[in-house]
Amino acid sequence: MGFTPKNYSLYKTALTHRSVSENVDENNERLEYLGDAILGAITADYLFRRYPYHGEGFLTEMRSKMVNRQQLNDIAVRMGLKKITKYNKADHCLKTSHIFGNTLEALVGAIYLDYGYERTRRWVQDYIITPHMFMDELENLEINHKNKLYGWANKNGKALEFVTVDEKVENGRRLFTVAAVVDGESIAQATAFNKKDASQIAANKAIEILGLNNQ
Amino acid sequence: MGFTPKNYSLYKTALTHRSVSENVDENNERLEYLGDAILGAITADYLFRRYPYHGEGFLTEMRSKMVNRQQLNDIAVRMGLKKITKYNKADHCLKTSHIFGNTLEALVGAIYLDYGYERTRRWVQDYIITPHMFMDELENLEINHKNKLYGWANKNGKALEFVTVDEKVENGRRLFTVAAVVDGESIAQATAFNKKDASQIAANKAIEILGLNNQ
Repeated sequence: MGFTPKNYSLYKTALTHRSVSENVDENNERLEYLGDAILGAITADYLFRRYPYHGEGFLTEMRSKMVNRQQLNDIAVRMGLKKITKYNKADHCLKTSHIFGNTLEALVGAIYLDYGYERTRRWVQDYIITPHMFMDELENLEINHKNKLYGWANKNGKALEFVTVDEKVENGRRLFTVAAVVDGESIAQATAFNKKDASQIAANKAIEILGLNNQ
Repeated sequence: MGFTPKNYSLYKTALTHRSVSENVDENNERLEYLGDAILGAITADYLFRRYPYHGEGFLTEMRSKMVNRQQLNDIAVRMGLKKITKYNKADHCLKTSHIFGNTLEALVGAIYLDYGYERTRRWVQDYIITPHMFMDELENLEINHKNKLYGWANKNGKALEFVTVDEKVENGRRLFTVAAVVDGESIAQATAFNKKDASQIAANKAIEILGLNNQ
C-alpha cells in the first residue's frame, strides 16, 4: 500500500465483510459508508481540476463512470483485495456481488481515519486513479443503458418503450420525465433536462430494478 | 464567515447563479458540484464519529436529513446568502427553488479550494452544523413520505397503493422491491432490505416525480 498503517485495527475492520461478523464495529460497513463519501470528494476534486472548462453535467457523469460499483470491484480484485478480505466463502451469492469494491471503499475510509484527508487524496490518486482509471477511455465510454435494456427485451420477448410522461419548466429550464415501460408497465422513471438523458437514466434504473446488472 | 478569503474570485463565482451568467467559469455550478461532494464527506465524517455504535443504514439516513435540499436552502437563507447571491430576480421560478442551498454548497467548494479540506471541515462544523443542525431533532424526525403521498392522493381523488413487485435474496439478505402505484400506474419503485423502507423510498421518489415537493 505504500505506507505503514498506524492503527492496525482500522484495516482489520476494513477487510472484514459482514458475512463473517454481524457486529457493527467489527465488519466494514461503517468504514465503507465513510470511504464512499471520501472517495466521492476526492474524485470530484480530481475531475474539477483536470477539466477546468467542463460543466457540472460532464463532471457528474465522469464521476459516476469512475466510481461505479462494477469498476471499483474490478479494481479491488486487480489490487488483490479478494485474497485478503475475510468473507464467508461458502456463500456463493457473494462471489457475483461487489463486496471487494466495498472493501476498497472501506480501505479508503480506514486510511482517512488513520492519516487524514490530504494523505488519502494522494493515495487514491497514486494507487487507484492513475494505475486503474484511464480518463481518455472513460471520456469516450458511452454507457448505453437503453441499448442494454432493448437487448434484454428482445431476447425475452418483451415490448419495451420509452414514454415521456411529464414536461415542465423549472428555473427557466425545461424538464422531461421519461418512463421505461415494459409490456405496458412503467418499470422506472427519471427526470432530466432533455429526453435523451432522462431515458438513459430511466433505462439504468430499470436495469437495476429488473436485476440485469450482471448480465 | 470567520476568515479572510485569499482568492476572492472563487467567492465571487460561488455567489453567481447561472441565471446571470451562462459562462461555465463564471457561475457557481462547477463549485456547487465540488462543494456538494466535500460537504458529503464532511457530514459522513461527522456522523461516523458522533455515532460510533450505529450502523451505516442509520448514518446514511441521518446524512440525507442533514444535507437535503430544503434544509440546506433554509440554512443558506438564514445565513444571509440570499442577500449576496447574484441571480435573475425577475425570474419568479427561482424564488421557490433551492438556489440558495446551491450557493451554500458552492461556497463550501470555494473554501475547500482556497483553504483545503481540514479548514473547510472546521468551518462547516462551526458555521453550518453546530448553529443550524440539531441532531437530537433530526434523529427523531421521521420523514414520512408515504403519509405525504396518501394526503395528496386523498385530496385529488387518486387511488394509491404500495405493491411488492419483487423479492429476492442477495448477499444472504432478502431484498424487497416496492412500487408506488397511482390509479393503477407504477409511478416509482425502490428496493430495500424491508418493505417499510422500500415503500418509503418509493413514496419519496413518487413525490419528486409528481412534483409535490413544495406542497
